[in-house]
Amino acid sequence: MMTAEQYEESLRKLNLVVYMFGERLRNVVDDPIIRPSMNAVARTYELAHHPEHEDIMTAVSHVTGNRINRFTHVHQSIDDLVKKSKMGRLLGMETGCCFQRCVGMDALNALSIVTYDIDAKHGTKYNERFLKYLAYVQKNDFTCDGAMTDPKGDRSLPPHSQPDPDQFLHVVDERKDGIVVRGAKCHQTGAVNSHEIIVMPTISMREEDRDYAVSFALPGDAQGIVYVVGRQSCDTRKAEGGNIDQGNLSFGGHEALVVFDNVFVPWDRVFMYREYEFAGRLVEIFASYHRQSYACKVGVGDVLIGATQTIAEYNGTEKASHIRDKIVEMNHLNETLYCGCIACASEGQREPSGTYSVNTLLANVHKQNVTRFPYELSRLAQDVAGGLVVTLPGEKDFRSPDTREWLEKYLKTKPHVSTEDRMRILRLIENLTLGTAAVGYLTESMHGAGSPQAQRIMISRTVNMKEKQKAAKKLCGIV
Amino acid sequence: MMTAEQYEESLRKLNLVVYMFGERLRNVVDDPIIRPSMNAVARTYELAHHPEHEDIMTAVSHVTGNRINRFTHVHQSIDDLVKKSKMGRLLGMETGCCFQRCVGMDALNALSIVTYDIDAKHGTKYNERFLKYLAYVQKNDFTCDGAMTDPKGDRSLPPHSQPDPDQFLHVVDERKDGIVVRGAKCHQTGAVNSHEIIVMPTISMREEDRDYAVSFALPGDAQGIVYVVGRQSCDTRKAEGGNIDQGNLSFGGHEALVVFDNVFVPWDRVFMYREYEFAGRLVEIFASYHRQSYACKVGVGDVLIGATQTIAEYNGTEKASHIRDKIVEMNHLNETLYCGCIACASEGQREPSGTYSVNTLLANVHKQNVTRFPYELSRLAQDVAGGLVVTLPGEKDFRSPDTREWLEKYLKTKPHVSTEDRMRILRLIENLTLGTAAVGYLTESMHGAGSPQAQRIMISRTVNMKEKQKAAKKLCGIV
Amino acid sequence: MMTAEQYEESLRKLNLVVYMFGERLRNVVDDPIIRPSMNAVARTYELAHHPEHEDIMTAVSHVTGNRINRFTHVHQSIDDLVKKSKMGRLLGMETGCCFQRCVGMDALNALSIVTYDIDAKHGTKYNERFLKYLAYVQKNDFTCDGAMTDPKGDRSLPPHSQPDPDQFLHVVDERKDGIVVRGAKCHQTGAVNSHEIIVMPTISMREEDRDYAVSFALPGDAQGIVYVVGRQSCDTRKAEGGNIDQGNLSFGGHEALVVFDNVFVPWDRVFMYREYEFAGRLVEIFASYHRQSYACKVGVGDVLIGATQTIAEYNGTEKASHIRDKIVEMNHLNETLYCGCIACASEGQREPSGTYSVNTLLANVHKQNVTRFPYELSRLAQDVAGGLVVTLPGEKDFRSPDTREWLEKYLKTKPHVSTEDRMRILRLIENLTLGTAAVGYLTESMHGAGSPQAQRIMISRTVNMKEKQKAAKKLCGIV
Amino acid sequence: MMTAEQYEESLRKLNLVVYMFGERLRNVVDDPIIRPSMNAVARTYELAHHPEHEDIMTAVSHVTGNRINRFTHVHQSIDDLVKKSKMGRLLGMETGCCFQRCVGMDALNALSIVTYDIDAKHGTKYNERFLKYLAYVQKNDFTCDGAMTDPKGDRSLPPHSQPDPDQFLHVVDERKDGIVVRGAKCHQTGAVNSHEIIVMPTISMREEDRDYAVSFALPGDAQGIVYVVGRQSCDTRKAEGGNIDQGNLSFGGHEALVVFDNVFVPWDRVFMYREYEFAGRLVEIFASYHRQSYACKVGVGDVLIGATQTIAEYNGTEKASHIRDKIVEMNHLNETLYCGCIACASEGQREPSGTYSVNTLLANVHKQNVTRFPYELSRLAQDVAGGLVVTLPGEKDFRSPDTREWLEKYLKTKPHVSTEDRMRILRLIENLTLGTAAVGYLTESMHGAGSPQAQRIMISRTVNMKEKQKAAKKLCGIV
Repeated sequence: MMTAEQYEESLRKLNLVVYMFGERLRNVVDDPIIRPSMNAVARTYELAHHPEHEDIMTAVSHVTGNRINRFTHVHQSIDDLVKKSKMGRLLGMETGCCFQRCVGMDALNALSIVTYDIDAKHGTKYNERFLKYLAYVQKNDFTCDGAMTDPKGDRSLPPHSQPDPDQFLHVVDERKDGIVVRGAKCHQTGAVNSHEIIVMPTISMREEDRDYAVSFALPGDAQGIVYVVGRQSCDTRKAEGGNIDQGNLSFGGHEALVVFDNVFVPWDRVFMYREYEFAGRLVEIFASYHRQSYACKVGVGDVLIGATQTIAEYNGTEKASHIRDKIVEMNHLNETLYCGCIACASEGQREPSGTYSVNTLLANVHKQNVTRFPYELSRLAQDVAGGLVVTLPGEKDFRSPDTREWLEKYLKTKPHVSTEDRMRILRLIENLTLGTAAVGYLTESMHGAGSPQAQRIMISRTVNMKEKQKAAKKLCGIV
Repeated sequence: MMTAEQYEESLRKLNLVVYMFGERLRNVVDDPIIRPSMNAVARTYELAHHPEHEDIMTAVSHVTGNRINRFTHVHQSIDDLVKKSKMGRLLGMETGCCFQRCVGMDALNALSIVTYDIDAKHGTKYNERFLKYLAYVQKNDFTCDGAMTDPKGDRSLPPHSQPDPDQFLHVVDERKDGIVVRGAKCHQTGAVNSHEIIVMPTISMREEDRDYAVSFALPGDAQGIVYVVGRQSCDTRKAEGGNIDQGNLSFGGHEALVVFDNVFVPWDRVFMYREYEFAGRLVEIFASYHRQSYACKVGVGDVLIGATQTIAEYNGTEKASHIRDKIVEMNHLNETLYCGCIACASEGQREPSGTYSVNTLLANVHKQNVTRFPYELSRLAQDVAGGLVVTLPGEKDFRSPDTREWLEKYLKTKPHVSTEDRMRILRLIENLTLGTAAVGYLTESMHGAGSPQAQRIMISRTVNMKEKQKAAKKLCGIV
Repeated sequence: MMTAEQYEESLRKLNLVVYMFGERLRNVVDDPIIRPSMNAVARTYELAHHPEHEDIMTAVSHVTGNRINRFTHVHQSIDDLVKKSKMGRLLGMETGCCFQRCVGMDALNALSIVTYDIDAKHGTKYNERFLKYLAYVQKNDFTCDGAMTDPKGDRSLPPHSQPDPDQFLHVVDERKDGIVVRGAKCHQTGAVNSHEIIVMPTISMREEDRDYAVSFALPGDAQGIVYVVGRQSCDTRKAEGGNIDQGNLSFGGHEALVVFDNVFVPWDRVFMYREYEFAGRLVEIFASYHRQSYACKVGVGDVLIGATQTIAEYNGTEKASHIRDKIVEMNHLNETLYCGCIACASEGQREPSGTYSVNTLLANVHKQNVTRFPYELSRLAQDVAGGLVVTLPGEKDFRSPDTREWLEKYLKTKPHVSTEDRMRILRLIENLTLGTAAVGYLTESMHGAGSPQAQRIMISRTVNMKEKQKAAKKLCGIV
Repeated sequence: MMTAEQYEESLRKLNLVVYMFGERLRNVVDDPIIRPSMNAVARTYELAHHPEHEDIMTAVSHVTGNRINRFTHVHQSIDDLVKKSKMGRLLGMETGCCFQRCVGMDALNALSIVTYDIDAKHGTKYNERFLKYLAYVQKNDFTCDGAMTDPKGDRSLPPHSQPDPDQFLHVVDERKDGIVVRGAKCHQTGAVNSHEIIVMPTISMREEDRDYAVSFALPGDAQGIVYVVGRQSCDTRKAEGGNIDQGNLSFGGHEALVVFDNVFVPWDRVFMYREYEFAGRLVEIFASYHRQSYACKVGVGDVLIGATQTIAEYNGTEKASHIRDKIVEMNHLNETLYCGCIACASEGQREPSGTYSVNTLLANVHKQNVTRFPYELSRLAQDVAGGLVVTLPGEKDFRSPDTREWLEKYLKTKPHVSTEDRMRILRLIENLTLGTAAVGYLTESMHGAGSPQAQRIMISRTVNMKEKQKAAKKLCGIV
């Protein structure tokens, strides 16, 4: 297993083509806007070396028998699934943001199941190929980006009918040694912090779309891959040079548009190729795993609750009954989310491949709640924090001899509370509810792993309505 | 294990002193208002004999090694805890009401822990005594009533300061062969369907209240115990003689005020006696188990959802997008509840006595949601059902030659839908949202196992706020 | 203006054909289940004679210049509209139930507008005919039932395509002196307490449905009209003879299925006849008025809040911060409803006929909230009240020498609180949240004046989305 | 009435002492971060000259008889109050942000009442003095900042007991020609765009606090007044020089900490001086007016709804039933807010001074909803908009030849939708839900005009609970 330092060094060796603010980033790792997101991934390496977290953060590989970072593990038991949820909460709490590495783990697990299933039907050898790749990832302790969401163009049309055929990523050439693909993947969390990128289709497909039914893995710096980093609320605060106004001093996230401009994929990295009838299944299995992964938001919720309790104490309002009640409500909602990610794991099951999958219904129910409760937690946090969370003068005002005295004097509450500390905790709350972390805690909670309606459709499909109707009819005498 | 028939017969042998509508009930079992509640308990016996439910409904006794009804089992593993939740959902779905038997199970489990803990501190022999009693209950497959809630009189005063000392049940005499107690227990679900009644204190106590710190078990027909059955919404419909208007044809619930009028308890049935410092612990452990038990409402929710889908189909509205969305929301909320009762079990732990207890925080979070979601499910069910759920003419109108034709004609929707069936499902929805079952599905969900504020207090106490604050402070640089 | 006594006497003179529980009711007025609903209507007569309510309860007729009961008035100003909302709240608070008389008022007002509009297009004389009828209603101070909702049969088919053509009320014969109609109207609130019944179509219609585009008024006891009274939760408690268990001692509501079995309507009572293109407009105008009428639920909410505060005081919990907060929330929600019914009136407008109509958008918004907030108020009321609201023994137990002492002793809270009073207020809360009044406060709030989706459709139609989009585009530079 | 241009020129003549980012701002008006907020205020001048808005935007002064900008008007009728609400919605929609000028209007109106009341009790001449000042403000068409919120230091202590006596603004010296004050006011919206600042106390006071019971007006550039501008989410985007990424191209808001460092106030500008018993009343009256002023958020909501509908159309999802339903819900919530600000105006009343005040209860109910619904509107807007709202690359990426083609290609949806327009509307939604406008639309909605608990306390105080209890008791027979 790599250390955080080794991870950072390994990233420096990548030759990614990354654009941000219209210019190519020559040093991705040290860019002040990207670096906090690298730090967050690095934390997934660092904690794996902490003895007190070993049980949660590591596992024993079923392919090699070696102890590995759990983020590269394929779940072999219910216990693995439960620990995955706990790892998400732990890291959410440690970083206060999206730590990005779950998506690759979820892609690996989904492929471990679906490659097996394709082989069972078609007599192909995808699973064997995949397991070799898995061993390679585990050995190198790679961070993988799991890339699913296509641009989708006109949402009313299937892939093959789009005016621009590249609106869904597809095979444009088949060669002796591999395939050539074109297209793009949107909203790629942690893209430029990843060694590898694992591509999957984004929707169910029919035969006409078979060129779009493709899954593969590549190094992040393969020829033809281009990254365009997205903007986040308050992104440039990270580059201002201070250490208060960004709220979260070390950690953040990023998303990128990833363009595949005629990229070559060798055969040993191809895990699905035109088996269109498995596209939907891969999407669903990946989605269920990834919906479970929103366990992380419970950890971010812990940070927000901790910050809220702290500002209440700094403000001197922590004993007011309505303040206490709001913090109880925050905890209640946050732990309700926790119940979801634990239950979908606890109710998981063994797939034919030997991999354990989560309970689909409950994973969708969990994620659906994630699209709601963080918004309410944010609202309550802002309620408790007070208006200063958005009217606080800046760090430079606090450092300036012209204004520091006014801030020290008029932002003072109780004698033992440092004004600087009060500013820091307010900035963290701003960060989580409006700033860079809000991108992950709110909007990503809404749309990551599928927008709310996607979960509703899955809930509708997976509940056993007939059984419920039968029970109802029996009780009232309908025969 | 008894069969349902044996259970019924065993009840006939009891000589309970039961009052209802101001008169003594001479035949409790056959009383039309009580009988549906007896039927619901009987279902807990019947299902234990169904092979397909054996895994859920039965267990192997850790005291005797015999296969027993799970309702008399003391949980020996996480798996036992999870199955308890599933048993609750199963029976809720089978009966569409409160089946009453969980409270005794929860009392047995709580006492298995606390008698052990008292002994550890005081060198007493309560646990040994309790285990004998447990073996007796298991052997006879008894239904036990777990009796906790005292009348409480003036809520601002502790037990010993009440103007009327009997507002909390207490010891009034100590004899060589046992003790004499006086007081009452309110809201006793299933009281008159129980063989035994297990009494526990209702709040934490201090030394002054030590006479109130008493726990014991007695046969339900012990000398001096009097039951006064409470009224429920629509209770008398059960006695009208038809088979539509009551909605749920076979099952219901009941609650009773249980008076202890100088009742003698032999020593071998006494499990706590003046160890006031354990009163609060017994309450909390019982409460956590019992909050988990609200798993049953998920099953009742299944019935309501099934009924709602059915009326939508009967009305011909089942494909309208807003109807489908409301039913998805019902399922989403119901499964969120399910996550809670699974998670608090899955995250349970072994106590020193060997009994497994649920996760206190998550059990409280679960119950808190139970105080909310069934109300919203009911609202949505009424929305989908249409106004007829409360304006439907009665069964007698349907049977009368004067009016039947009008009902047949004007309550008709689609050709293949029988008007009678439509009436039946509407009555079931009425039953669950306004009628006898609403008492259990709504108000008992609110107050059973403790009112919402009790859960909020426990949530507040059990979350680790310091850890959250530490995480927040670290992230924003507060040292 | 009639007195309450005169109103009662006038009802005795009607010869209504009413069925309930499968039998014809020979004395409607004195039937214990119907009478409370008659009492509620009578209150609309009584309060009109109270000087302190004159301003709200009466108006000056624009046709005769006489002072009339406002329930027979056609609104001549914004002030009239606002007072209508206030009258609704007042009477809701006075009766704690549905007082039934608003629907006729709304029918009269809607017809005053639409008859005028039809005449303007077709050169007919409906408005003149209607004004004569209005003067007759005002002079006699009649209660009118406004009958809109048809059975609708297969909801996917328009009226003329139904397998049974009578699923929507329609003209079956045209005679020299009038027309003959057949069909039924469902959920008719207050039907058997009304002197007159005013029929309107229930949906928009196309030319093929022109025989269904009919509106007219008739005496309630016209030949061929049959009433079948619907059952309500806890209906038979009213007939038990006590005076506690029914909760609301004097007032209630009722709904009936009204069958028109080839009923003759003379021409001077016909207000729309095959002008199908006005059917939708009549529905919408009536619906907007009637959605405003749910002002009454604010008054019922006042009663529920008052009862909740009272039980908190009786329980001794009124100072607990969470109890106070819940009661604040109840008030907040109730007053939010009040804002809706005031605002839709305040933003009303003059129609070509001279009648003032409410703001359609805001009336729909108001009603939409009414489909939500009373449910939450009920939930909160049950939370504050405690479990006894559904486990309380009955009045007969309280009167019986065998059990009274137990109830007196164990339902006692604070010294000055009478146990009987505590029982009474609990029964009132039960009545409002589960019993007969819940039918009106909850389910009728959901479906009366149109189910929630009907309001959503109207909201969607009436908001000016283009204007909003224009504003948004301008701000972000889209040209 | 000034034009927008004259307003801008008038600001240039002020010599304000403003700090931002630790440095003194030499040119406030043209500072790129401040200017959008100036533009928003300027819009209040500009619209007053548009004939189609004259009715809403202007009024006739009751002191001079001249036509004036409504923002300087003292309400003389219910109609004035209603138009004030409509003016707020109009300007919210025009600017998509906080336009800042309402607070001064509310201060003027509150003082018009309270100066009169003080005079009535104490025989002082405050009202006369105030009316002169009012005429001066009206004549010059000034923008006034209404300054209420003090820093408050230790929230558990009253003003006079604070360790630092300046935590509440107070009189430190009385001179022949006036008084000298010291202290600060927090969160001052629009402070540096105002000609005048009107200071009021922030809480009820007792005699010991009489030096804190002071109200007065001063020019914004009076000697000793210092402004420190607060940071907002995404504030520096306004200074980046583009015209997409800031979302709202022209308008924004700002808040400042305003320090009064021994500032002299001449007697003719003092409107309350040590009449401590009127401090609470001034706070309450101002607060009610200012809670009504949150009518503006309805207009901002209009913008957000318009943007949401637009992005749905651009995405091609506008016909999906769940999208339509979410937009209906947004409208429903927004119009519910509108009902509140209309109803509290419509139910207003004449004060002894002749000024019309809003209904206190309903104004508080309105504001309470404002602390909730905009958050839900934001959540729904993000749901509909899709994840791109937070992952969209920047304007510079769009302008760069290296990346523009990728963005044009992969952000394309339907043929007729310009990618640039799609980016613009997404940025506007980001602005409103996470960016600078979110500060006003969300957090200011929470805390402006008092935090939610302040409204709850007022609701609790102003509802007539006795009347409700009387109604409840009467109905259930409690005498």
